[in-house]
Amino acid sequence: MSRKFVVAGAQMGPIQRGDSRASAVARMCALMRDAHARGAELVVFPELALTTFFPRWFMTDRAEIDGWFETAMPNAEVQPLFDLARDLGIGFHLGYGELTAEGRYFNTAILVDRTGAIVGKYRKIHLPGHREDEPWRPFQHLEKRYFEKGDLGFPVFDAFGGKLGMCICNDRRWPETWRMLGLGGAELVVLGYNTPLHYPPAPEHDHLQYFHNELSIQAGCYQNGVWAVAVAKAGMEEGSELIGGSVIVAPTGEILARAATSGDEIITAEVDLNRCSETRANVFNFALHREPQDYAAITAPKPTG
Amino acid sequence: MSRKFVVAGAQMGPIQRGDSRASAVARMCALMRDAHARGAELVVFPELALTTFFPRWFMTDRAEIDGWFETAMPNAEVQPLFDLARDLGIGFHLGYGELTAEGRYFNTAILVDRTGAIVGKYRKIHLPGHREDEPWRPFQHLEKRYFEKGDLGFPVFDAFGGKLGMCICNDRRWPETWRMLGLGGAELVVLGYNTPLHYPPAPEHDHLQYFHNELSIQAGCYQNGVWAVAVAKAGMEEGSELIGGSVIVAPTGEILARAATSGDEIITAEVDLNRCSETRANVFNFALHREPQDYAAITAPKPTG
Repeated sequence: MSRKFVVAGAQMGPIQRGDSRASAVARMCALMRDAHARGAELVVFPELALTTFFPRWFMTDRAEIDGWFETAMPNAEVQPLFDLARDLGIGFHLGYGELTAEGRYFNTAILVDRTGAIVGKYRKIHLPGHREDEPWRPFQHLEKRYFEKGDLGFPVFDAFGGKLGMCICNDRRWPETWRMLGLGGAELVVLGYNTPLHYPPAPEHDHLQYFHNELSIQAGCYQNGVWAVAVAKAGMEEGSELIGGSVIVAPTGEILARAATSGDEIITAEVDLNRCSETRANVFNFALHREPQDYAAITAPKPTG
Repeated sequence: MSRKFVVAGAQMGPIQRGDSRASAVARMCALMRDAHARGAELVVFPELALTTFFPRWFMTDRAEIDGWFETAMPNAEVQPLFDLARDLGIGFHLGYGELTAEGRYFNTAILVDRTGAIVGKYRKIHLPGHREDEPWRPFQHLEKRYFEKGDLGFPVFDAFGGKLGMCICNDRRWPETWRMLGLGGAELVVLGYNTPLHYPPAPEHDHLQYFHNELSIQAGCYQNGVWAVAVAKAGMEEGSELIGGSVIVAPTGEILARAATSGDEIITAEVDLNRCSETRANVFNFALHREPQDYAAITAPKPTG
């Protein structure tokens, strides 16, 4: 059975502090129409795609912080995106700040099928950055302050005729993320990111940000025999430049599509989920070739104190 | 304290079936002299560097099989390499087939310090290939037949002023290998490989063999903040072409040196072990950013049957 379809990455240019969610959603709807016109059945939006990347600021006012989060999904401002998806019969992936009814805060992504139904949710596990104000930085990266570590593990969902997994931004750098998804049977991993070009603690690596983005995703795809669509919010956002470089990567690790700009841009490629087995039945046949009894340190609790 | 020194990769061209160990050792001695003349303090030789890559043949005669293994290290044929290393004051890494006094067979590598003393041993854990004759293949890959899975884990050794780890060939494709070494504190990983250009079960990937070699090593280095020296036995060996592409890779994942031929060839680079902390204290600060409680499936026993 053929399991080929076109996927799209919907890279977004910057969203400034004063930009409304409605304006972001309007841009996403335009991107979705473009993706649909190019034959896509699934369009992937970035991490925290409804607002500027707010963890760059140290905030203490609870109401101000809560203003960056969604308390329902969909909500009135995002509803047009769900409506358009249902009208076009196209699925999508969206990242946003989630504030639950219990008062918990997560960096969350959802998967929406072609009927507009939410069929999967993931909450970011590898939160980068720091918890306290570090005034020496030109901008903060306070994800550990504003978000709780995700509590859903690395789920894999039956959708789009295959097995789909999600991760978010910094998750993609960790081989454990890809392996958990691979062991879960994922065939396509979708993810968004907001990655500043400048990394204040080790600026000697700034020129490698695009390379490290691609290296992490390509290795994750190759070593697990999965497809990936990885999508940036890019460009100069409130004085902090975010990398672009959105890519669609094959299970061989080959990059099949790459964004050419730092703005709103659609990239597409045809994915064939049946190709995952070329890898998973051979070099990375997990049942045959993994040796988990020799990996104990990987799941050992971290040293404390 | 500066912890910089020059390392060399000693890629070797093919060793045919009839070539003696003495001839291989003579070539290695020439490579070692070259490496020393270029300032190297450590030279890395390939996997199974004393003989042709014998797992390409199905054999049932025990004496014939045993003929490919070493029962002592050093032994008379390899002693000249140890003697030269001690005379030059240069360390080395060497892969060979090990037959123990108890009659166990391993794909083994050793680390020898500048005094000619063996200071580390590793036995290959990720054995690729198959156990039984598969006559449809143009050549066999019977590592699972001829070797037992390594029983030493992924040890890390105090040597050359730092922490050195080893892995062998197919181990390099598995992120678990690099993570085990990284968690063990490795700063430099040395490894050899014999990688046929043609992979019979999935020939549609043959053109990607060099890419996959580099991708695996670069990702392992970046994601663990380690240096690597990865060295091929290369060229047309008994009708099977082996890839070259020996590389020295920085903790950033950048390739600093790459072999240009498929023959005997020295590559060198200066490694600075202190640079590992640029990564390990920041993006890949394991204590701060890993989430091992979410990785359970990685060490779960494999499904049986």
